[in-house]
Amino acid sequence: MKLLRYGQVGHEKPGLLDNDGQIRDLSQHIDDIHGTTLSPQSLQKLKNIDINSLPIVQGEQRFAEPVSRVGKFICVGLNYADHAAETGVSVPSEPVLFMKATSSITGPNDDVMLPKGSQKSDWEVELGVVIGKEAKYVSEEDALDYVAGFCVINDLSEREYQIERQGQWCKGKGCDTFGPFGPYLVTPDEAGDVDNLSMWLEVNGQRMQTGNTKTMVYKVPFLIHYISQFMSLQPGDIISTGTPPGVGLGMTPPLYLKEGDVMKLSIENLGEQQQKVVSYQG
Amino acid sequence: MKLLRYGQVGHEKPGLLDNDGQIRDLSQHIDDIHGTTLSPQSLQKLKNIDINSLPIVQGEQRFAEPVSRVGKFICVGLNYADHAAETGVSVPSEPVLFMKATSSITGPNDDVMLPKGSQKSDWEVELGVVIGKEAKYVSEEDALDYVAGFCVINDLSEREYQIERQGQWCKGKGCDTFGPFGPYLVTPDEAGDVDNLSMWLEVNGQRMQTGNTKTMVYKVPFLIHYISQFMSLQPGDIISTGTPPGVGLGMTPPLYLKEGDVMKLSIENLGEQQQKVVSYQG
Repeated sequence: MKLLRYGQVGHEKPGLLDNDGQIRDLSQHIDDIHGTTLSPQSLQKLKNIDINSLPIVQGEQRFAEPVSRVGKFICVGLNYADHAAETGVSVPSEPVLFMKATSSITGPNDDVMLPKGSQKSDWEVELGVVIGKEAKYVSEEDALDYVAGFCVINDLSEREYQIERQGQWCKGKGCDTFGPFGPYLVTPDEAGDVDNLSMWLEVNGQRMQTGNTKTMVYKVPFLIHYISQFMSLQPGDIISTGTPPGVGLGMTPPLYLKEGDVMKLSIENLGEQQQKVVSYQG
Repeated sequence: MKLLRYGQVGHEKPGLLDNDGQIRDLSQHIDDIHGTTLSPQSLQKLKNIDINSLPIVQGEQRFAEPVSRVGKFICVGLNYADHAAETGVSVPSEPVLFMKATSSITGPNDDVMLPKGSQKSDWEVELGVVIGKEAKYVSEEDALDYVAGFCVINDLSEREYQIERQGQWCKGKGCDTFGPFGPYLVTPDEAGDVDNLSMWLEVNGQRMQTGNTKTMVYKVPFLIHYISQFMSLQPGDIISTGTPPGVGLGMTPPLYLKEGDVMKLSIENLGEQQQKVVSYQG
């Protein structure tokens, strides 16, 4: 299934994408898509629905983030060997984790708003993993049983805030609109081989990132196992698994986002995002 | 008001503490205490209730965390000059922020569970600030208008995970049960002068931390202003403002929590917490 949420901010409805690319409304079956509706039992129920019985949603729709009420947005840093190299550091001996404010989450095609005075905002296409049942001290072998689905994440980063403003990365990672998420939450049966998904990101039509999840240092099952040693993961939590080479910070000279830029990004089987960059409007 | 939530995990009800120290049930007025019920309008409505009209809750009750559905748990590091000194670093030139997983939140008197194999779990009594309305680019002058109330936080930390396990602090800060919160959310009118509140923490009856918010480097209004430059704050978000000296990491040799230890901690006007330390039970 390609689960999704559609409609204007604050009025989103649950839906799914059918094989013809049409949105089908799920409101008669679930109130929203969040931790509770992502349990294995709930997903199985949704899979059993005859798609043709679901109303087709007419007209142009905004895609919202496909999961609401995300509890934790955990990210993995420097998880592609080439990306670590471009940022001038070596691959860490165990995963680097950081947290992104859940208030940064937006729909996949919503505008990205540069923070006031921001000079160093940067893009990062990433494979996102959404948890479907509570995971605490899970083994690498069992880890995929805890996954509800996969998605595209743009892990936007203000590099000055992240690196030059004292201490931890969260200052530059959690800015409002810095977490485009979606358009779909793709259940594992439709995601393909998540260790071999191509991914790319363009700015103004120019290819910036070209990668494949096969060059990830720490793979999805290990990451779930690893994180669950430090804290439990709840249904609806997101793990964003790191970005391949090609971020603005790694260029000579560095290249950052400016008002009017358009980002387009995609991961094989998981859909495409497009964001316009706007200045702070307060 | 001293707002609170009482009852067993998953079955908490909203309440408040009356002047005789009795719990009064608020279920007839609000469904729970969370972002929506913490708005200035909602708090004003609650203040207008005749306390004597509220049912007295009989019997021994568990105190839960006084706010549910916390969106962000943002912490300030090294915000007391003496504490910075004991950890061997100088006071930062601007606040150090980090995020604590919201899944670490527990009631003020719930057991604290050491992670599997943990050798370096440590305590930190902190003044918590809970947001009542959305704050984005707010001035220091207006910042207190965005506060719903104040509370006691024990910012527990696994120092090995935090410091020795690569990268960001979140690994050691977000362990399950590492965020005791409460017993009350005390509205500003009853919190007193938050720039001059004494605070302390004991382990097994021995005083470990003795401090006062007057030695905080960056004060509450500045912190709200500051954080709101990087990300917006939503109703129900917590800011934990840092800890005074006396943590286990700062001792010679360092002293860490072990099974059976009992922590007791308090901040003037905001109530008292007590946690028993237990080993991982899986």
